[in-house]
Amino acid sequence: MILEIASIEILAHKHDEFEGAIKFAVETVLSTAKGFNSFQLQHGIENPNMYTLLIHWETLEDHTVGFREGPLYPLWRSHIEAFFAGKPEVFHWSQVFAIKA
Amino acid sequence: MILEIASIEILAHKHDEFEGAIKFAVETVLSTAKGFNSFQLQHGIENPNMYTLLIHWETLEDHTVGFREGPLYPLWRSHIEAFFAGKPEVFHWSQVFAIKA
Repeated sequence: MILEIASIEILAHKHDEFEGAIKFAVETVLSTAKGFNSFQLQHGIENPNMYTLLIHWETLEDHTVGFREGPLYPLWRSHIEAFFAGKPEVFHWSQVFAIKA
Repeated sequence: MILEIASIEILAHKHDEFEGAIKFAVETVLSTAKGFNSFQLQHGIENPNMYTLLIHWETLEDHTVGFREGPLYPLWRSHIEAFFAGKPEVFHWSQVFAIKA
């Protein structure tokens, strides 16, 4: 399992519309992708125009090849990119360890 | 519940030592803080010197006031800061929604 962390600046005063659009896009597009495991949308406290997407994929290639180079990607982007105020910054991470209280 | 996301660049060739040190520091210091809920250490795939810490706190103030201004913080830092190659970048986030496959 790998974690995609994507940071996106969204147009001011478009937060509610963006949140509705990305929820629809996750439910109808992203969650149908091979290797999709989970999605979280996080909203910035210090920077209210910033959102972070935390997406778990079974493998790195499920995201970078299967999803990014497949037919779902343009559909996914079409739902959300009108709200972007800048280019998303995307990196991938592998978990070293986790601890729960 | 809020999510702290901290990104830290670690000295090259010190990854194993850092991972051991932060695991000990989470188990003995961070996890004893009031409001601590969970911790994940994530290692960069594109940038192997980068680590991301994902830390859930009950409230923002549990981190920014209770932990950062309390006696545990210097102890926590003393275990890990020798491995830092730069200043950590820390922001806080509130969850909008989450979906699991």
